[in-house]
Amino acid sequence: MRVLSGVQPSGTLHIGNYFAMMKRMIQYQNEHTLFCFIVNYHALTTVGEPDKLRQGALNAAMDFLALGLDPAKCYFWMQSDIPEVCELTWILFQQTPVGLLERAHSYKDKLAKGFSPQAGLFNYPVLMAADILMFQSEAVPVGKDQKQHIEITRDIAIKFNNQYGEVFTLPEPWIDDDTATVPGIDGQKMSKSYDNTLEIFLPEKQLRKKIMSIVTDSTPVEAPKDPEKCNVYKLISLFMTAAEREELAQRYRAGGLGYGQVKKELFERMWAYFAPYRDKRAALAADPEEVRRIMAQGAQKARALAMETIDKVRRAVGLNY
Amino acid sequence: MRVLSGVQPSGTLHIGNYFAMMKRMIQYQNEHTLFCFIVNYHALTTVGEPDKLRQGALNAAMDFLALGLDPAKCYFWMQSDIPEVCELTWILFQQTPVGLLERAHSYKDKLAKGFSPQAGLFNYPVLMAADILMFQSEAVPVGKDQKQHIEITRDIAIKFNNQYGEVFTLPEPWIDDDTATVPGIDGQKMSKSYDNTLEIFLPEKQLRKKIMSIVTDSTPVEAPKDPEKCNVYKLISLFMTAAEREELAQRYRAGGLGYGQVKKELFERMWAYFAPYRDKRAALAADPEEVRRIMAQGAQKARALAMETIDKVRRAVGLNY
Repeated sequence: MRVLSGVQPSGTLHIGNYFAMMKRMIQYQNEHTLFCFIVNYHALTTVGEPDKLRQGALNAAMDFLALGLDPAKCYFWMQSDIPEVCELTWILFQQTPVGLLERAHSYKDKLAKGFSPQAGLFNYPVLMAADILMFQSEAVPVGKDQKQHIEITRDIAIKFNNQYGEVFTLPEPWIDDDTATVPGIDGQKMSKSYDNTLEIFLPEKQLRKKIMSIVTDSTPVEAPKDPEKCNVYKLISLFMTAAEREELAQRYRAGGLGYGQVKKELFERMWAYFAPYRDKRAALAADPEEVRRIMAQGAQKARALAMETIDKVRRAVGLNY
Repeated sequence: MRVLSGVQPSGTLHIGNYFAMMKRMIQYQNEHTLFCFIVNYHALTTVGEPDKLRQGALNAAMDFLALGLDPAKCYFWMQSDIPEVCELTWILFQQTPVGLLERAHSYKDKLAKGFSPQAGLFNYPVLMAADILMFQSEAVPVGKDQKQHIEITRDIAIKFNNQYGEVFTLPEPWIDDDTATVPGIDGQKMSKSYDNTLEIFLPEKQLRKKIMSIVTDSTPVEAPKDPEKCNVYKLISLFMTAAEREELAQRYRAGGLGYGQVKKELFERMWAYFAPYRDKRAALAADPEEVRRIMAQGAQKARALAMETIDKVRRAVGLNY
């Protein structure tokens, strides 16, 4: 199955990203034909600072490579290294009713958040459709909030195929409903916008400090505690087997276990879990040229497929002459 | 001066096109750095038939080459041979308020003519801006109806330069107010949409028949006539010197000159005027591979300049990494 997923090059990676999305995606490379790319053309719609865009893109590449994405097992590239996707976007505009874009939730949400109504935000779903259709993707793992984008992509592809013949594969959304919501250090959903994240590659001292600041209730140490109501428990569970989780839950219920102690254990677990990735990440960060070389190779591999599609599309619509 | 002009690849060339636009543009190649290209990406917004788009593009290339555009003296290419313009379009979307596109006359006109509100029509002015800015154009000859597109281009370029530094040249519109309106055979403005055109490369018999069908009034042969009220006079004037025009005007005013006689003279003049072009056109039509070769060379030449701009733009916005 051809599975495609775009990654935003924004911000520093936290365990919310990792357990909600990245970990699973990295597993797909063993089970599917995975197309994974860093969406810096999309990021341009909200990131106006060139250095931030550049650094975010490079960081995202390093993050994925460090966390185990293997360019030999999948297609992994930087969106802007295959500019043909912009050409496909222009072509697909002819199959995109303006009203469809006006009704896109993501556009309305962005405006509600105070972004100016620029054509980049407005046309965002068509670039996404071009990404998906360019690689003849069969499945696109998305959150519920992104489901509409897949529907828009299907609408565009169906119109195109009806007009010009069967050129595009229709993608299916893969909506994972049972992804555990990872709580942030304040108990809300972990998210950069709430400033409540645990960054994966934070230095030891800072990570320890952040973990020790996780908000808990004021139950005294000696009292029994309900693990299900504790953020620290939810977080440490991410790094435990079912048996380990159950054992810890019993310690909670027995009383005599302080939150501080569990926080220390969470730090140890998280630090150990990401240790090999951290070393890989540091090695990549020390050699950005190597990262650029890997991405250039990845783009070359993916571009060969993109060119097949764009050639077919150009012939179908009559841009050849 | 860098002068840029896009050509629609639609329809069969008539003398209205020629005297209102092409003749002057072909002269620019001697006086300016001329950038002339066939806008098949734009045409895609209204031409849904692949064969029509293909053939229209090839015909337009043959027409311009036959009529004297010299790829050695100017930049002449097919828009779709430099797909980087689509990438620039995407980048410029970030400097394009949605409201600016909603207010574009050309979009509203297209909807009024019954076209569906597709994103291609909606985003049309941004692709045009990308064409203009890609080649750092200083002047863009346009009709009055296209002036707003140059203003939109300037707005986008100013916003971009303000945000990212001086990357783009601001173009000026060249609006030629004194272009003679060429009347059609029914007396209205010559236009494909009125089906009243005199095509430049029509076969002899058909051209003669069309010219003989030009609408005139019923003044008898022997009566004096007012040349300024006669379509035939206006049309034949296009092929005459001032002295020849004056001499013919005197024959009109003297009486005894029938419209049929002037129509015959118009045919002779027009047939002779386009004779060398007609031969060149026929030679090109007989060798479409040669036309494709010329266009490929032209694209290569223009693309070198386009790459300079797009590289500068990519670095400015942070798409390099």
